[in-house]
Amino acid sequence: MALSRTVWFDAEQLRTAVAMSTVIDRVREALIGLHEGEFEIPLRFAPGVGNFLVMPVRHIASETLAVKSLSANFTGRRPALSGTLTWEEWHTERHIGADAAEATAMRTGAVSGVAADLLAAPDARDLTVIGAGGQAPDQIRAVLAVRPISSVTVAALTRESAEACIARVDGEFPDVRFIASDEPRAAVAGADIICCVTPSTEPLFTFNDLKPGAHVNLIGAYRPAMREMSGADVARARLFVDDVEAVAAESGEIIEALETGGLVREDLRTLGSALATGEMGHDPARVTVFKSVGVAVQDWALMRALVDTTAVAGSD
Amino acid sequence: MALSRTVWFDAEQLRTAVAMSTVIDRVREALIGLHEGEFEIPLRFAPGVGNFLVMPVRHIASETLAVKSLSANFTGRRPALSGTLTWEEWHTERHIGADAAEATAMRTGAVSGVAADLLAAPDARDLTVIGAGGQAPDQIRAVLAVRPISSVTVAALTRESAEACIARVDGEFPDVRFIASDEPRAAVAGADIICCVTPSTEPLFTFNDLKPGAHVNLIGAYRPAMREMSGADVARARLFVDDVEAVAAESGEIIEALETGGLVREDLRTLGSALATGEMGHDPARVTVFKSVGVAVQDWALMRALVDTTAVAGSD
Repeated sequence: MALSRTVWFDAEQLRTAVAMSTVIDRVREALIGLHEGEFEIPLRFAPGVGNFLVMPVRHIASETLAVKSLSANFTGRRPALSGTLTWEEWHTERHIGADAAEATAMRTGAVSGVAADLLAAPDARDLTVIGAGGQAPDQIRAVLAVRPISSVTVAALTRESAEACIARVDGEFPDVRFIASDEPRAAVAGADIICCVTPSTEPLFTFNDLKPGAHVNLIGAYRPAMREMSGADVARARLFVDDVEAVAAESGEIIEALETGGLVREDLRTLGSALATGEMGHDPARVTVFKSVGVAVQDWALMRALVDTTAVAGSD
Repeated sequence: MALSRTVWFDAEQLRTAVAMSTVIDRVREALIGLHEGEFEIPLRFAPGVGNFLVMPVRHIASETLAVKSLSANFTGRRPALSGTLTWEEWHTERHIGADAAEATAMRTGAVSGVAADLLAAPDARDLTVIGAGGQAPDQIRAVLAVRPISSVTVAALTRESAEACIARVDGEFPDVRFIASDEPRAAVAGADIICCVTPSTEPLFTFNDLKPGAHVNLIGAYRPAMREMSGADVARARLFVDDVEAVAAESGEIIEALETGGLVREDLRTLGSALATGEMGHDPARVTVFKSVGVAVQDWALMRALVDTTAVAGSD
């Protein structure tokens, strides 16, 4: 065993240790594994009327366990999400811990990368990200890891916040053109891929604003009152979700689509099932939408990537 | 805030950072708090037929959360218990992580210290510890933190293992006489305080081997098939437990006492209730027994002690 018993990764160390492309690969495998019953996932423990969230997940075959403990505080007096993500192995005494806020951003980006890799045009050039908060930079990193993007538009409520978001990532991609916008609806017009990471309660654009073959990742809405597209528009697209139970309970878009959009629950297909069954990927004639509220196997996958990377580095 | 966002304590760092006397004080307060309803404790999550254990506990008033994630492997190919213990605060973005094996040993010692402090003779001089495994050294440290012990007997299956245990702690207590024994039953005869930390399935001694006024901590048995005293003998003593539900489900001694020893469930009093209500402590005429299978608030208390200690050190 090359590692010491306990290894802790703060946000910067986590970022340095594991490449986004690796996280994408591990998240892809984990979504397939989720579809195939490889994980045991108990109910979330949400004590303190949601002030805390404990999300354990066990990968059965490898006997490994990831547990994310978050404190969620939206008072503005500290970062909203904050916590720890730990990793245990039954066969060894190795443990890993990591900053949960950074881990969440990375794995949330990675799932958008997995979806875009399956569903977006292979030659996609134009990415639009709506929202300039903490999740936005990893949406950009993930899509750029899977497609030959040459132009990224970040659209936010103000041009200043879009520019601030761009400043966090543009140094990593010197050959990409970055554009700041305060007009989200206009910004989706020519885009091959659109990632939405906002707390919006109203649709950000309509189906007809999208070009044929566009792929949309809906990441922001995780409560019934939140939605980034209308339920009716979501129902018009080729639709994939991360977890049927979770999106039917938490996603405003899916709840609206089921209630008034003509969608039935049997229409909800998981990205994992599409990946597992070799579902046809990009269809140039149709818009695809991937809706994610986040599943615990993404956290497991991030730690898997970290463990693999660290083990290799440690054995030098 | 004097601390950085994330602080990780490996076994050695944890041991150095927090004194046993402080852990004892925090565990005492937590047991009182448990009695008074200050904690929210969900069901344990034990995935993988007990290969892993996730134990979260929230302290309501302070909005703090401790989560212990253990992997438990008794194949002998690694330490049996291994894992991480994390700490989250709702009001801040501070997080703490610590080695769970070391934390478990320290907090399991501390609860014996709390019980001995309430129930043992104030002038107790002679301590006997039965069992020489990983939990034994902290039993010694904890009792020595609360009573003027001058002689410690460690009794184990072999004199060699008792000597090895003594070698781990005697340097910390130069004024104390340490005696190695391979005769557990004889070793309890003159003892003021007895701590049992074995996996025994048969009683280690009988009630009549104990001197009047002796105090016994039963720490080892955590499964119905395990017992360090007989149920009948436990029922003869002034009896205190850490948690009524837990001991009635897990402790071989208590289960036997309830089934055949004449004890009824209403006889089971928690140490927390005795501490909270100012229960008379030591009674020179009677033997007291404290039975503990371990409760999650002990982990919370250890982290509380660590956070307080670290904050003080950090503000220098």
